[in-house]
Amino acid sequence: MNALADTVDAAADPLVIAGKTYRSRLLTGTGKFKDADETARATAAAGAEIVTVAIRRTNLGQNPGEPNLLDVLPPSRYTILPNTAGCYTADEAVRTCRLARELLDGHKLVKLEVLGDQRTLFPDVVQTLAAAQTLVADGFDVMVYTSDDPILARRLEEIGCVAVMPLAAPIGSGLGIQNRYNLLEIVENAKVPVLVDAGVGTASDASIAMELGCDGVLMNTAIAGARDPVRMALAMKLAVEAGRHAFLAGRIPRKRYASASSPVDGLVG
Amino acid sequence: MNALADTVDAAADPLVIAGKTYRSRLLTGTGKFKDADETARATAAAGAEIVTVAIRRTNLGQNPGEPNLLDVLPPSRYTILPNTAGCYTADEAVRTCRLARELLDGHKLVKLEVLGDQRTLFPDVVQTLAAAQTLVADGFDVMVYTSDDPILARRLEEIGCVAVMPLAAPIGSGLGIQNRYNLLEIVENAKVPVLVDAGVGTASDASIAMELGCDGVLMNTAIAGARDPVRMALAMKLAVEAGRHAFLAGRIPRKRYASASSPVDGLVG
Amino acid sequence: MNALADTVDAAADPLVIAGKTYRSRLLTGTGKFKDADETARATAAAGAEIVTVAIRRTNLGQNPGEPNLLDVLPPSRYTILPNTAGCYTADEAVRTCRLARELLDGHKLVKLEVLGDQRTLFPDVVQTLAAAQTLVADGFDVMVYTSDDPILARRLEEIGCVAVMPLAAPIGSGLGIQNRYNLLEIVENAKVPVLVDAGVGTASDASIAMELGCDGVLMNTAIAGARDPVRMALAMKLAVEAGRHAFLAGRIPRKRYASASSPVDGLVG
Amino acid sequence: MNALADTVDAAADPLVIAGKTYRSRLLTGTGKFKDADETARATAAAGAEIVTVAIRRTNLGQNPGEPNLLDVLPPSRYTILPNTAGCYTADEAVRTCRLARELLDGHKLVKLEVLGDQRTLFPDVVQTLAAAQTLVADGFDVMVYTSDDPILARRLEEIGCVAVMPLAAPIGSGLGIQNRYNLLEIVENAKVPVLVDAGVGTASDASIAMELGCDGVLMNTAIAGARDPVRMALAMKLAVEAGRHAFLAGRIPRKRYASASSPVDGLVG
Repeated sequence: MNALADTVDAAADPLVIAGKTYRSRLLTGTGKFKDADETARATAAAGAEIVTVAIRRTNLGQNPGEPNLLDVLPPSRYTILPNTAGCYTADEAVRTCRLARELLDGHKLVKLEVLGDQRTLFPDVVQTLAAAQTLVADGFDVMVYTSDDPILARRLEEIGCVAVMPLAAPIGSGLGIQNRYNLLEIVENAKVPVLVDAGVGTASDASIAMELGCDGVLMNTAIAGARDPVRMALAMKLAVEAGRHAFLAGRIPRKRYASASSPVDGLVG
Repeated sequence: MNALADTVDAAADPLVIAGKTYRSRLLTGTGKFKDADETARATAAAGAEIVTVAIRRTNLGQNPGEPNLLDVLPPSRYTILPNTAGCYTADEAVRTCRLARELLDGHKLVKLEVLGDQRTLFPDVVQTLAAAQTLVADGFDVMVYTSDDPILARRLEEIGCVAVMPLAAPIGSGLGIQNRYNLLEIVENAKVPVLVDAGVGTASDASIAMELGCDGVLMNTAIAGARDPVRMALAMKLAVEAGRHAFLAGRIPRKRYASASSPVDGLVG
Repeated sequence: MNALADTVDAAADPLVIAGKTYRSRLLTGTGKFKDADETARATAAAGAEIVTVAIRRTNLGQNPGEPNLLDVLPPSRYTILPNTAGCYTADEAVRTCRLARELLDGHKLVKLEVLGDQRTLFPDVVQTLAAAQTLVADGFDVMVYTSDDPILARRLEEIGCVAVMPLAAPIGSGLGIQNRYNLLEIVENAKVPVLVDAGVGTASDASIAMELGCDGVLMNTAIAGARDPVRMALAMKLAVEAGRHAFLAGRIPRKRYASASSPVDGLVG
Repeated sequence: MNALADTVDAAADPLVIAGKTYRSRLLTGTGKFKDADETARATAAAGAEIVTVAIRRTNLGQNPGEPNLLDVLPPSRYTILPNTAGCYTADEAVRTCRLARELLDGHKLVKLEVLGDQRTLFPDVVQTLAAAQTLVADGFDVMVYTSDDPILARRLEEIGCVAVMPLAAPIGSGLGIQNRYNLLEIVENAKVPVLVDAGVGTASDASIAMELGCDGVLMNTAIAGARDPVRMALAMKLAVEAGRHAFLAGRIPRKRYASASSPVDGLVG
């Protein structure tokens, strides 16, 4: 059984972002955990290989003498993905990415997010487009948090972003996938990886994202805010793998009953 | 990672049916596969420990000289769960269970299903109640396929069934969980295991069943009818585990956004 | 405009129950209102022609000297539909119907409900079947509250019930239609009227029931429990009419976008 | 009954757009009908007071000698809302609005849509923002078709649009409301009318939009594409009114059953 799973995951079906190959399709955030130990254990249970770090809220060495996240999640083991959480303009976001690059010795991979609103944490897509353009021109490999608007997703890909990361629902909401058809539209038309970023609440949400054909899922609150974050991290790891396999395996169509001659027809749903 | 998963599954959180302990919470059917090899490989990929067999359609030795399913799925490795698929009256179902007991040397565990309709394969709950009563009195350990009616589920438990198996949707439909609140109601009030039996279409459906607190899931078409049954079996294994862990880990509540002071309030949904 | 509506509703598309023709497809309950005046105004705003009355909780003359509901909702204007709310066995329900018949001078039309549980108010379908059989044999015209089990709905029709009334969700829950496919299955196979009874929360729920092809909707809490019961009664009247017209008008199929060559295919939903 | 409905609709609860008061909250498109007669009858059955016209596809007098839509839908009876359907850049859209203003003798009210894609007809929100800015500066009263992105909806309001018109789903898809929380977010924060524009498939979809607090609904395909467009127009009129009344009446909260002490809690849904 495990041999089967391992073969499939690692070899035949890797996730490639900016030329680097990953075996895990679950990316995790590093905020909101109780302490460094929980962060480390949950991240390990999630099987994450890419961990995202809010540069403005996290010490990666810029505050000497304080605890450094890189001691907990060493770059030798994890791909560190600096993000611009807390930035509300393109300028702030660009500056934050440049700071991250300095702190991390020329590291080019970043997750861009420019927020439109402190209350909802929805992206400001206009500022996001502007920042993406600047960052790509400046040599960054930009993974970009955005709405689930298929036209914008394509625009961000055209600009040169290395991954498009539409929300499933507002950050931290746990509402799950609100608009499956938008995600599907994005996935079917993208040539770069599409990762759901934000809104996942529980394991099935992550599975659904993968079943739609998403290349991965990024989450933080759903794990860190669960009653048992480490176990939820494991749940999410399994859910992402389950959804990916289900996508590749080709599900049966929905029919009203087994003997129905054709799938449900769009009249009831 | 695997060590963590193994520990949790096997030791701390077993499924107990009729006094026997199982590590897997995914039960699979044995029909509809291409051939014996696919049956064996998919069942292994699913990690199933209990496999259900339609006595009226399957040779377990009653037709000497023909291929015997028990050669493919040996009782030494799998708990064989004879079922009464194809029975439309209590009498037929009872007779079929007795035949199974003979064929399997006194084996007491059966899955009772009495269907109401060839087209939809919905259960006939009145005949099911009658058959359950007879079978329990006759010493069988009865796992019972039923509708998602919470009152009937309780009645079947009171009769002495060892597991209640409500449908998520019609057999073979792949429609997924149609009525979450009914399943939740059944789960919260049952003292015997509750397993979703029928209607699962893809991995997330299985996760959702487990997240509602179900003790397990039984499926056949969703695996056997997938484009790649073996990979789908693996997907379902992972999905059931994911959903179980998510249930135990305690998900975050749905909120309109992270900064909302309370969960969604039942006014929009 | 109104001429159009009137023509369609009254003449071409009547609801016929037990041989009597109704123009309104919204039936209302009479409990839970603030006072007699609100009862009267909400019932009028709903345009109801059939109003259901809990015999065990309502004075229809059995308690002389106390307020009589029939003064508020006169039988000359409304078809009074006595119901067996609060009955938990077939015997109680049968006795209650007989009492109603006496109180109402031989009135034969009743709404049978036999509940399984005080907490959830789910029907006890076994007791319901038994009571239906007795009442039909005793000459009653039985409209019957039941689960959304299609096999049972057919059985109740075979017994001779004049209308089958599946729940959308538990009584008073406001959860809306939980299982559209079950309702559709019942509707498509019934030769007597099918009315959704219980579970409607707001106007669109009533529309959805009608769009599935139901012949009518019965509700009480959704109106009486609203902040403004009279306005909600009007909303429900319009919603039932809207849903009926939409059903008859033949909706467009769901497609991923206008230019898609075929409806959604049962793989995403 | 009708007296009650009339009073409420006309007097107490008008829709005000750009200073003009409307009694109907259902706006209709004029394309896709079989002929002029069906257009006229469906528009009347819908009770529409505002009808939108694709300037690039419709003769409003620019082609003398050809049938003129204004003969079918006279401006004396209907507010004509020229739209920019078929425009894929801000420039095209601005030019089209100016052409409409000339054709309609200085008429200022327009519906702006700038599409991103011929296949899906999703809006191009960046071009939409640019066109809105130009048109508002040029003295137009701009009703604007956009995605359901709450940040962009607010931006369009800040620019000075007189109404924001988010999609429910792609134009002509009939998929219904895909993201209720986004619509709710837009509605709760807008000071101008919010009208759902695109995606409605049947009556209940229109009710749901109104129940979320939207000020109106605009549709074309759902009516013109129905088997019986005139009856569907009536269904939609009633559904919009039903949803509006239900919104104002204050629905009961969803609970698991009537006896539950609190609404559903965001853990199951």
